[in-house]
Amino acid sequence: MTTQAFQDQYPDEFAHCYGCGRLNDGGLQIKSYWDGDETICQFTPDAKYSGGFPGFLYGGMIASLLDCHGAATAAAAKARAENKPLGRFVTASLKVDFRAPTPINTPLDIRGKITEIKGRKVVVELTLSALGKLCAEGSAVMVQIPEKNKE
Amino acid sequence: MTTQAFQDQYPDEFAHCYGCGRLNDGGLQIKSYWDGDETICQFTPDAKYSGGFPGFLYGGMIASLLDCHGAATAAAAKARAENKPLGRFVTASLKVDFRAPTPINTPLDIRGKITEIKGRKVVVELTLSALGKLCAEGSAVMVQIPEKNKE
Repeated sequence: MTTQAFQDQYPDEFAHCYGCGRLNDGGLQIKSYWDGDETICQFTPDAKYSGGFPGFLYGGMIASLLDCHGAATAAAAKARAENKPLGRFVTASLKVDFRAPTPINTPLDIRGKITEIKGRKVVVELTLSALGKLCAEGSAVMVQIPEKNKE
Repeated sequence: MTTQAFQDQYPDEFAHCYGCGRLNDGGLQIKSYWDGDETICQFTPDAKYSGGFPGFLYGGMIASLLDCHGAATAAAAKARAENKPLGRFVTASLKVDFRAPTPINTPLDIRGKITEIKGRKVVVELTLSALGKLCAEGSAVMVQIPEKNKE
């Protein structure tokens, strides 16, 4: 079992995402790992990603964290189910429910739970918490990019 | 009728959002306007906001644009309905369906349509298109922050 982050196992050609690409120098470079049958990403956003009112995170960043961690979770789940190297997933659909203001400059826990793997489709339930308090939750439908087909 | 962007009418204390705050110097500073009964925001994201595969926009930015334009649309719709200055809305829920890869370094049209105004809640349907092609669509439930209550 590897402790290498999911995103560090993406093929180079798909590793340029602002949120999670290890080859995007100016990006967030979030990292996701297994935690039992769930997945975890810990991340502390910079203060510039403020919401309208200072001290809290803007909604787009919350959606970004759930999206990128969701895609990584889908890739890892599919790879584990088939005992293959990680492929790359893209988002078909993302739903986010904002439950409480998310503090900024605070370590955030983003968690994923796989609820369905069917062919190239993986469904992931997601939560974002700060200091143990649930701030947002959501669901993502992720679809694997076919290998040898970059179109 | 004013041609000032919705975001430029937000109270100063709520104008710090990374996506749309005029007081966030490092942010995107998107601007939204009326276009008849719909709303429009035109924005060209920087190449650093790449998705996994270069040349396309990352999902988190798509969600951010829909979210910030949705909040602005809700604020403008409520203000117009009540003939009052713009208040500030936060997102209760955001759903995004990704329909096609979104090109980067291309002007994007983000459009909003108000489907419900009920008390402090406004529901907005959203689309994001590039060069006339639909790339993403979604729905947002926005809730007005009570005046004189910043908690």
